Amino acid sequence: MAGPDRKDFLAQARQLIGADHLLSGEGLDGYEKDWRKRYAGRALAVARPGTTAEVAALLRLCAAHGVSLVPQGGNTGLVGGGVPDGSGQQLLLSLRRLRQIRQVDPANLTLTAEAGCLLAEVQAAASAAGLLFPLSLGAEGSCTLGGNLATNAGGTQVLRYGNARELCLGLEVVTPQGEVWQGLCGLRKDNTGYDLRDLFIGSEGTLGVITAATVKLYPAPQACMTALAACPTLDAAVALLNRARALAGATLTGFELISRFCLQLVRRHFPQIPQPLADDAAAPWAVLLELSDHEDEAHARQLLERILGEALEAGEALDAAVAQSMSQARQLWHLRESIPLAQSEEGLNIKHDIALPISAIPAFVADCGAALQAHCPGVRLVCFGHLGDGNLHFNVQAPEGQDPAHFLRAQEPAINALVYERVLQRAGSISAEHGIGQLKREQLAMTKDPVALALMRQIKKALDPQGLLNPGRLL
Amino acid sequence: MAGPDRKDFLAQARQLIGADHLLSGEGLDGYEKDWRKRYAGRALAVARPGTTAEVAALLRLCAAHGVSLVPQGGNTGLVGGGVPDGSGQQLLLSLRRLRQIRQVDPANLTLTAEAGCLLAEVQAAASAAGLLFPLSLGAEGSCTLGGNLATNAGGTQVLRYGNARELCLGLEVVTPQGEVWQGLCGLRKDNTGYDLRDLFIGSEGTLGVITAATVKLYPAPQACMTALAACPTLDAAVALLNRARALAGATLTGFELISRFCLQLVRRHFPQIPQPLADDAAAPWAVLLELSDHEDEAHARQLLERILGEALEAGEALDAAVAQSMSQARQLWHLRESIPLAQSEEGLNIKHDIALPISAIPAFVADCGAALQAHCPGVRLVCFGHLGDGNLHFNVQAPEGQDPAHFLRAQEPAINALVYERVLQRAGSISAEHGIGQLKREQLAMTKDPVALALMRQIKKALDPQGLLNPGRLL
Repeated sequence: MAGPDRKDFLAQARQLIGADHLLSGEGLDGYEKDWRKRYAGRALAVARPGTTAEVAALLRLCAAHGVSLVPQGGNTGLVGGGVPDGSGQQLLLSLRRLRQIRQVDPANLTLTAEAGCLLAEVQAAASAAGLLFPLSLGAEGSCTLGGNLATNAGGTQVLRYGNARELCLGLEVVTPQGEVWQGLCGLRKDNTGYDLRDLFIGSEGTLGVITAATVKLYPAPQACMTALAACPTLDAAVALLNRARALAGATLTGFELISRFCLQLVRRHFPQIPQPLADDAAAPWAVLLELSDHEDEAHARQLLERILGEALEAGEALDAAVAQSMSQARQLWHLRESIPLAQSEEGLNIKHDIALPISAIPAFVADCGAALQAHCPGVRLVCFGHLGDGNLHFNVQAPEGQDPAHFLRAQEPAINALVYERVLQRAGSISAEHGIGQLKREQLAMTKDPVALALMRQIKKALDPQGLLNPGRLL
Repeated sequence: MAGPDRKDFLAQARQLIGADHLLSGEGLDGYEKDWRKRYAGRALAVARPGTTAEVAALLRLCAAHGVSLVPQGGNTGLVGGGVPDGSGQQLLLSLRRLRQIRQVDPANLTLTAEAGCLLAEVQAAASAAGLLFPLSLGAEGSCTLGGNLATNAGGTQVLRYGNARELCLGLEVVTPQGEVWQGLCGLRKDNTGYDLRDLFIGSEGTLGVITAATVKLYPAPQACMTALAACPTLDAAVALLNRARALAGATLTGFELISRFCLQLVRRHFPQIPQPLADDAAAPWAVLLELSDHEDEAHARQLLERILGEALEAGEALDAAVAQSMSQARQLWHLRESIPLAQSEEGLNIKHDIALPISAIPAFVADCGAALQAHCPGVRLVCFGHLGDGNLHFNVQAPEGQDPAHFLRAQEPAINALVYERVLQRAGSISAEHGIGQLKREQLAMTKDPVALALMRQIKKALDPQGLLNPGRLL
């Protein structure tokens, strides 16, 4: 079915933002396909407004013409939430031209930036003021602040600083009717009504368009110390986590889990990356610890050595390597960050971004791993992630020698069902940090508390009664 | 106008929760009046359900009969949000019988408790597991966890741990239609849809009834160190704050501001409380610093002495006294906490619980103080509060010798207008931690961003279309 011809709408949109910034036709793959090339749509046009006022005018125009729209930041999401459907009737609203750092306020420890600023640009602006914006993730060179907030992005320092949500104090948002909510608040305390900020954060562009945000900054730590420790069991890794928390408090900024098979995959595909734990065959698990210290390197080292010394004595760790330089520390993080790449080299796999109460993780991994083996003997589990946040990347790779593409096609639904059932039994989440988008929309509808789903639908209908913002995503 | 006779409703309510738990008639002052005795209402009855299922059944009954209701925790709020109006037609829903600690999970650092648990009981349950629940405020012996969350309570450690909002991971909520949202999540990461949790937190009982919550716990620090420092200016106090943050990071857990006049008031009314800064006349401001250290007392002392030493050298502090024992530390906090009492002894005054960007505080206090003097010569400013959070208690006392009650009656509207205008000019908040309730409802309607107000009304209407939950409060 062909949709209505949108000549009038397009002509008016062109007038609002300038013909140069309303793109249509061929060559728009960078907007219409997600970067993993899993979702490919076709947009009515790509609009690249340059100011909040232009965004608002476009949304009023969409509302008047009944045109639905898909907001997009850096297009680095993993769940297909920011690309249009295949109808050719949705306006793709790119926020990338809104890229001003509006203010850095060192005495208030805040920064206000527009939605299209790259995360790396926000980090750099904080750093130029001698401060830290701690949101940090693999895509930071291409993802945007607006996208980070729309999806409540996580990353590697959530244990200490929280998700994007916890780092945001205020928002500027354009409503589906094209009004601008001026909520750019730089306050730590403000009890004047409902928490609209957190309603828009994580709503994946379905309730409004975030055009700017005021975020928290932190004093930059004086020293970072990193170590890799081998653990005999997952219970031991959890005990080491809690020991590190008790001894280091908020100085502990990273605690990543890596299974033996992950290290083997990295060794197979990237043999040049050093692996400091000599004999990984002896230990089923490794953890990467990071301390960020406000005093100095000597103090950080002493604290890390105390944690590891006590853990070795208690049998929570079997072996440990402390990075002796910045470059060794970077190598340890590089090892951790190479796991997804090594996994891709090994072939397609079935990914799960799950969260569990930390206390439930050892039993979950044992049970679910056994159930997977029973279901599909020889299946290989790629288990790693942010243990300090209870967030596992629990990915399932075909048995050695099987065709990964065939395995994915044949097994994905059954294996998703098997894993998610066990996640929910232990009060976990089927999407810890990547969101819902298109990828998990049906699973959300099946698994979320029905009262919560009904509340979400009531809110969506109240704020976007025409259903124009990112329809068919999340809800 | 007499309301409808509610015999049927009351008979059914009695059946649902038992006659012993549905109170009416005389002797209900503890429910019908707020503790400051500023607001006094009359309830149709006081219902004291004992379980979440009973709360849900009561809300279904209210919805069927069109009876409006006012949820109440410990009845310690400061803005009249938890007491009924004078109609005698509202059901007062006391949550105090829901007081089970349902679970403590030390490895996950979480605790699940029912809404009617006293804050002190939650703190004690955490402490019994060797852990810390850091929400801490004056009313902790009588306020409830549910009330803390419904009002997003603040307190003395917000600088480090955040408000009640930041300490909560999951909620159990009864909707206005009497359905139960099972959202008792103990996860640090969960990106599965809209943030309903934060919508209910701080909504002051107008969107739903919180019946239980899962909150974050922290490892208990090993040592606390406290000091009082005299500062020559407010700019110096802000510089000292940022120095302490840079050197101590999250080890800095308290940073309270006290004006010279506050210390004088305490000396006048409580001469027995020691004041360690010898000559307060020399310094217009004092700050109370607290460090909570995960290593030991020696380390905490060394860090605090380094901060104060550098601040003295930089001229940010003129003098400093470090508590040499737990009992001296308690005395310093006692001095800080005696300010509101000393102020009451001095007589009625006009209170403002405001927040500002920390960078704006020195200029705000100078401008607003001068404007108050111009408006009402001789007026005395009682300025103290949580400088680390940008939260000031900016209270205005009658000129020496004037009748405080007359001053309050004659001056409150004009002085509120004068103060709030200047707060808003500097992007501040007219209610930092106490909320809106009845007290600031009209001010909210006049001062809040109109788009935000419209969004709030849309949400209220979507979730509570009958308008039964705490009507006339907040919105």
